[in-house]
Amino acid sequence: MTVVAGGPSAARPQLIRAINEQVLLDHIRRSGPVSRTELARLSGLSKPTVSAALGTIERVGLVHATGQRTGVPGPAAVLYEVRPEAGFVLGLDVGREFLRGAVADMTGAVRSRLSVRTKAGDAMARVQELAGLATTLLVDAGISASQLTQTVIGSPGVYDPRLDTLTLTGRLSGWDSPAVLPALRNEFGSTLMVENDVDAAALAERVHGHGRDVDSFAFVSVGTGIGMGLVLDGKLRHGAHGVAGEISYLPFAEGHGSDARDARKRGSFDASASAAAVVRAARRAGVRGASSAEKVFAAAARGDEVAAEIVAEEALLVAKAVCTVIAVVDPELIVLGGGIGQAPGFLEAVVDQLRQLAPVLPEVKASVLGTDTVVAGCIAAGLDRAWEHLVARISSPSTTG
Amino acid sequence: MTVVAGGPSAARPQLIRAINEQVLLDHIRRSGPVSRTELARLSGLSKPTVSAALGTIERVGLVHATGQRTGVPGPAAVLYEVRPEAGFVLGLDVGREFLRGAVADMTGAVRSRLSVRTKAGDAMARVQELAGLATTLLVDAGISASQLTQTVIGSPGVYDPRLDTLTLTGRLSGWDSPAVLPALRNEFGSTLMVENDVDAAALAERVHGHGRDVDSFAFVSVGTGIGMGLVLDGKLRHGAHGVAGEISYLPFAEGHGSDARDARKRGSFDASASAAAVVRAARRAGVRGASSAEKVFAAAARGDEVAAEIVAEEALLVAKAVCTVIAVVDPELIVLGGGIGQAPGFLEAVVDQLRQLAPVLPEVKASVLGTDTVVAGCIAAGLDRAWEHLVARISSPSTTG
Repeated sequence: MTVVAGGPSAARPQLIRAINEQVLLDHIRRSGPVSRTELARLSGLSKPTVSAALGTIERVGLVHATGQRTGVPGPAAVLYEVRPEAGFVLGLDVGREFLRGAVADMTGAVRSRLSVRTKAGDAMARVQELAGLATTLLVDAGISASQLTQTVIGSPGVYDPRLDTLTLTGRLSGWDSPAVLPALRNEFGSTLMVENDVDAAALAERVHGHGRDVDSFAFVSVGTGIGMGLVLDGKLRHGAHGVAGEISYLPFAEGHGSDARDARKRGSFDASASAAAVVRAARRAGVRGASSAEKVFAAAARGDEVAAEIVAEEALLVAKAVCTVIAVVDPELIVLGGGIGQAPGFLEAVVDQLRQLAPVLPEVKASVLGTDTVVAGCIAAGLDRAWEHLVARISSPSTTG
Repeated sequence: MTVVAGGPSAARPQLIRAINEQVLLDHIRRSGPVSRTELARLSGLSKPTVSAALGTIERVGLVHATGQRTGVPGPAAVLYEVRPEAGFVLGLDVGREFLRGAVADMTGAVRSRLSVRTKAGDAMARVQELAGLATTLLVDAGISASQLTQTVIGSPGVYDPRLDTLTLTGRLSGWDSPAVLPALRNEFGSTLMVENDVDAAALAERVHGHGRDVDSFAFVSVGTGIGMGLVLDGKLRHGAHGVAGEISYLPFAEGHGSDARDARKRGSFDASASAAAVVRAARRAGVRGASSAEKVFAAAARGDEVAAEIVAEEALLVAKAVCTVIAVVDPELIVLGGGIGQAPGFLEAVVDQLRQLAPVLPEVKASVLGTDTVVAGCIAAGLDRAWEHLVARISSPSTTG
C-alpha cells in the first residue's frame, strides 16, 4: 500500500517506472523465454509501457532477445530471457573432509564444478585451499574473478555479529577463530556471503527438492553433524540471533552413545545422535567392526540384533527431534537429510516412532539430493542476491533518470 | 509491486481510490485523533485526495470528527478518529474453572467485563453458560447482539479443519466433541472465531505486554496446562496443521511427577511439568500439604528442601522447553506466563538452567499481565478482524463506485 501512497509526488513517475522494470525482470526471470505480449499479460502493464521498460533493461545487459517463437498463429514474436553472462555466482561448501564448489551463470546453469579432499591442517590452510579451489573453478568456467557478482560459502556454524566471527562451527576445528572471516574476505572480496551449510542445503531442497511445492518445511540433517534449515512462508529463517535450526542443542541426552564432553562442545542432541554417537553406542554394546555409522546400519540390515537396537534408538532420538519441530512451528513437511537421515529404511523407522509422539503427523520425506546439495543451495542463495544487485543497479537514478 | 502493475487499466482509478482510503483508515486507527494535514504528511497523499477519501470514510460511519486542536499556531484543525460505535467485539475465555469475558468498542475501550466460576457438568452446559455470560455482557455494555461485529472465544485446543471440530482440548472434558462447534455457532452466529487460549494470551502480550517492542517472541505458559504462542514477523503462527506451539507434546518424560496415562492424553511435557505433575512429584517425595503447585512453591520458599528440589526440577524442565524453542526458531524474546511461569523467582531459576543448555541466551521475561490476558487477546484478535470487515465494506464497489 505504501507504494501508491509513498514519497513526494514529483518522484512518483520515476518510482513507478523503476517498479515496472522490476516487475518485468521478475517475470522474465521466473517465466524464462517470454514475448512482449506475454509480459504485458503477465504484468498487467500496457504494451507501450512494456516496450519502454524492456528497452532500458536490454540496454544495461540484464536480459536479451533470444530468438523468435514460430509455429503459433500470428507474426513471430521476439522472446526475452535473462542474459546468462549478466552475472556469475560462485558457491563453495567447506566440509571437514571435502571442499566442493561450482560456478553458475545468471540462469543457474553450472559452468564448472569440482570436489577435492581437504588436506588442510588448520583453518588458515583451509582458507587457502578454498581460494585455490575457487581459482580452478573460475579457470574451468572461463571467467575472471571480476566477473563474479556473488560468492557464497556454505559453512558449519552461524555468524555472530557482536564478535564479527563464526561461532558454533562444530567439528571444523579452528573455524570459529577471529582470523577466519578476515582471511576469507581478503581472498573473496566484498561480494562474499557466508551461509550455514545446513541452511544452504535447505535452500537447495527449496529450489530443487521436496521443498518446491510447500510454503513451510524443515530440513533435518543427521549425519557427521546435526542441523536444521527452517523455511516458513517460503523464506529461510535464521532467527533473532542466527541460531534457528541449531537442533544439536536440543536437550536430549538419553542415547546410549551419548557423551558428556561432546554435549558441552556441540550440544546434547549432537552428542547423542550424530554418526559419532552411533559408533560409540555400537562399540559400547560390542557390535564388531563398528568403525562408522554406515557400518552399524549395514550390520543392522544384515540382521545383527544389537546393531538393529542401536538403529532403532537412533530413529527414536531423531523422531523426538522432529516431534519438537512439529510442536514448536508445525511445518507442512519434514525432509530428512544427511548420511543417517537418508539411510535406507530410516525414514520409515522415524515415522513409526513419530506416530506415538507427535500431536499431528505431517508429511515426512527423505531428501533425494546428493553430495552437492550445499553447493546447490549456495548457488541458489547467490543467484537471488546477485539478482538483487543487478536489478538495483538498473533502478538507480543514474541509469533510469 | 503487483499493486502498481495489477489489473486491467480501466479499474485502476477505483482501485487506487480504495487503497488510498485503506491507507488513511490505517493511519487514523494507528495514530489516534489526527488532522487532515497530518494525514497528508503521514500518507504522502495530497490534501485534496485526503479530503475526498475522508468524505467517503466519514459518510459510512467508520471515523468521525472528534473536535479541534487548538493552542498550536495557525487555524484550529479538525481531528479525525475511529468512531467507537463503528463496531463492537465480544471476547470470551473458556477455562476449566472460570469463564471470563468482555465487550469492547472499535477503539478497544472495554464497555463491560465479567468473570464467573463455571458450574457446568458437561460441554453443552458450558456452551449455555458462555451464552448466558455473553448476554449479561451485552446488557452491561448497553448494546444488542446485532451490533457485535466479531465474537472471539479463547479455548484450549486447536481447530481441526478435516473433522470441523476442536482437538487437543486438554483438561476441558468433552470440549473436543463434534457437537461443541455447531452449538457455539448456533449461540454466537456467523461472526464467531475460536482462538487457542495460549495463542490469545500471546496476542495480548503482543498488544499490551512485553511483546510490544519486538518482532518475534514466544509466550510460554506453564500452569494447570502448558502451551505456547509463537509470534514471528509480528504475526501469530498457527502452523500448517494448527499445532504450532503445542509444546505439551515435547518429548520430555523424565520429571519425577511424570505420569504415563497423562502423557498419552496430553503429551509428555504436560505430564511431566504441569501443575498436576508438580503436585504428584511433591506427594511422591513426601512433601506435606502439597494440594496445589502453589503450595509446593510456597513450601520451597519457606525453606522446605524437598519442595525446593521439586521446584528446581520444574525449572530445569521448563528451561529444556525454552531451549528447544530457541534451537528451533530462535525468537528475540521469551515470555513466561501461567501460574508456574509467573511464580516469584521462577524466571531466575529457569534462566540459570538455560545458561547451561541453550546455544544463545535471548531475553527472558515473566509476563506481568493478569487473569484477563486471554480475554484481552481475544479482544485484540477480534478488533483486527472486525476492522478488516468494516474496511472491506467501505472498499466494495457498491460503496465507492
